[in-house]
Amino acid sequence: MTVQASSSSSDQTELLAELFAAGMLIETGVPGVYGHSDTFELIRERVAAAVGALASARGAARLTFPPVIPRRTLESTGYVGNFPHLVGSIFGFHGAEGDAVTQRERAATHEDWSEFQGQTDMMLLPAACYPVYPAVAKRGPLKSGGTFIDMGGTWVFRHEPSLDPARRQIFRQHELVRIAEPEGVIAWRREWSELALQLFRELGLRGELENASDPFFGRHGRLLAANQSADELKWELVVQIAGPKPTACASFNYHVDRFAETWGLELSDGTRAHTACVGFGQERITLALLATHGLDPQRWPAAVRTRLGLS
Amino acid sequence: MTVQASSSSSDQTELLAELFAAGMLIETGVPGVYGHSDTFELIRERVAAAVGALASARGAARLTFPPVIPRRTLESTGYVGNFPHLVGSIFGFHGAEGDAVTQRERAATHEDWSEFQGQTDMMLLPAACYPVYPAVAKRGPLKSGGTFIDMGGTWVFRHEPSLDPARRQIFRQHELVRIAEPEGVIAWRREWSELALQLFRELGLRGELENASDPFFGRHGRLLAANQSADELKWELVVQIAGPKPTACASFNYHVDRFAETWGLELSDGTRAHTACVGFGQERITLALLATHGLDPQRWPAAVRTRLGLS
Repeated sequence: MTVQASSSSSDQTELLAELFAAGMLIETGVPGVYGHSDTFELIRERVAAAVGALASARGAARLTFPPVIPRRTLESTGYVGNFPHLVGSIFGFHGAEGDAVTQRERAATHEDWSEFQGQTDMMLLPAACYPVYPAVAKRGPLKSGGTFIDMGGTWVFRHEPSLDPARRQIFRQHELVRIAEPEGVIAWRREWSELALQLFRELGLRGELENASDPFFGRHGRLLAANQSADELKWELVVQIAGPKPTACASFNYHVDRFAETWGLELSDGTRAHTACVGFGQERITLALLATHGLDPQRWPAAVRTRLGLS
Repeated sequence: MTVQASSSSSDQTELLAELFAAGMLIETGVPGVYGHSDTFELIRERVAAAVGALASARGAARLTFPPVIPRRTLESTGYVGNFPHLVGSIFGFHGAEGDAVTQRERAATHEDWSEFQGQTDMMLLPAACYPVYPAVAKRGPLKSGGTFIDMGGTWVFRHEPSLDPARRQIFRQHELVRIAEPEGVIAWRREWSELALQLFRELGLRGELENASDPFFGRHGRLLAANQSADELKWELVVQIAGPKPTACASFNYHVDRFAETWGLELSDGTRAHTACVGFGQERITLALLATHGLDPQRWPAAVRTRLGLS
C-alpha cells in the first residue's frame, strides 16, 4: 500500500508541516509514525490524567496490556475478517543460519527479505479493549453491578498511511470498558458521552456527538456498517482539527452481547453480560487542543491551562 | 518457533504461576505477553519517575517514539542482520476483496492465512533508542556539550517466547541517550552506572555491575559478541530474580561512533559524535522488587516505600 493523496487535504498537510517545523512532531520517514516532543507528551499526559480521574472517581480499576495481542484472540473476535485492510500481523525469522546471511545482505541494501519471515502467534493490538474480555471471562461469572476497567493509554496500530496528522498508523487510545447487566451498560455509555462532552467544553473544544459506524471492509462490510448505524451502536465525539470534516476524538461503543458470546462473559444468574467501551484518541485530543488554542500552551486560555494542571 | 523448556527453570515458572495467581500478571495465551495489574503498574511508574527525575535533574530533554519503527531505519542500523532471531516485522493485507473473504474464513477457524499478508515498511521497535539517532542527525551538527535525551518507557519487542517472567516478548525499556564529544559520552556512561547502582541500593536490590555482550546471532555473531566484550562496550546491572543466574535489569552501552557513522551525527567541528545509551528494564526492576520484598508492596521496607513515593 502506498499513501493516497486522497487521504489528506491541503490544510491537513499544512498542519503536519507546521507541527514538524515547531518540533512538536518528529518525522521518521513513514507517514503516520511520528515522535513527540516533551510539550506534546505533557499535554497528552494531562488529558489522560483528566480522563483517568473521572474514571477512578466512578470506581474504575486499572488493567494494562501491551500493544501486542495473541493472533488467536483477534481471529476469535472477528477483527481479521472485518478489518483486513487495517490489520498488522507480526512475522518473525523462519529459516536456517544460512538464510540469516542472505537476509542480512538484502536488508543492508534495502532489498526484499520477506521470504525469510513467517507468521508468528502475535499481532499488533488494533483497539485497546480487545484483551480485556477474555481476561475478565476467565475470572468466572461477574458479581452484581459488573465491572468497570480503565485500560489506560495503550498504543494501537491501524495500517492506514496518511498525511493527515490526526490519522496515525500507531497512536494511543485511552479505553474504558464496562461489562455488566444490559441496563447498567446502556446507562454507562450515555453517562460517559455526557462526561466527555463536558470535559471537551472545559478544554475549550467545540465537540459534537454523532451517530457513526466502523470502517468495515468491502461489500459485506457496508452491510455491517449500515446495521451498526441503524442500531446506534457507535457514537463519536467529533471536533474540527483540519480537513473537510471534523475528526472523531472519542467514541462510545455498545457491543450488546457480542463479546460476551465470544468469550463466555456471564452474570451471576448465568445470563450473558453486555459490554460497552469508550475510547479517547489521545493524539487527536492533543491535536484538537493545539489546532484550537495554538501551538504554544503557555498562551492557551487560563481556564484550559487550569483544567489540565498546566499553570 | 515454540517455547523451549530450556529457556526457563522451575523457580522461574513457579514465580510466573505465583504472579498469575496473585493477579499481578494476566495471562493472554502467549508466553511473554502479559497484562499488568494496577499494583504492578504503580510500582513500574514509580521506578520510571525515579529514573526520570535523575535524568531531568541532569538536563535531559524528553522525546517519545512509538513502538513501531520504519523498516529502513532498522535495516540501516544493522539490527536485522545482527539479531534476525529477535526481529518482529509487520505484515499487512496484500490482496483483493476476494482474498479478504478467504482470509476471513481461515482466520475464523484459526487456519493459516499468512499467504495474504505482505511485508510493510514498518517493524516492531526492538530497543527504545533506535529512532533518536536519525532524528537528532537531521537537526544538523551538535552544539558543544552535545545532547542528553530521556526516551521514557517505550514498549520494545523481541521474539523470544519464554516461561521466565523476566523474559518478555514485549516490555518497556526506559532509555536515556547521550550524543556528544567522546570524553563526555564515556564519563556519562560511567556516571549513570554509578547512579543506577545507587538507586538500586536505595530500592533494597542487591545489584552487581558486569561486563556483558548482546545476543548476536550465529557464528558471525559470536565474533561480534567477543569483540564487544573485549572492548567493554556493554555493562549490565544484574539482580537475582529467579533462575540459575541473576537477571540484567539495566544496561550501559557505549557505541563509540557506530551510530554517528550510520546517521551522520556530527559535532560542531565536523568530527563524528560518539553515542551511549542506558536502558532500564521496567518490568524486570518491578519483578526484582517483588521477588526481593514480596508481592505485597504495603509490607515492603519503609525506606523502599518512601524512595518510591508509595507511603
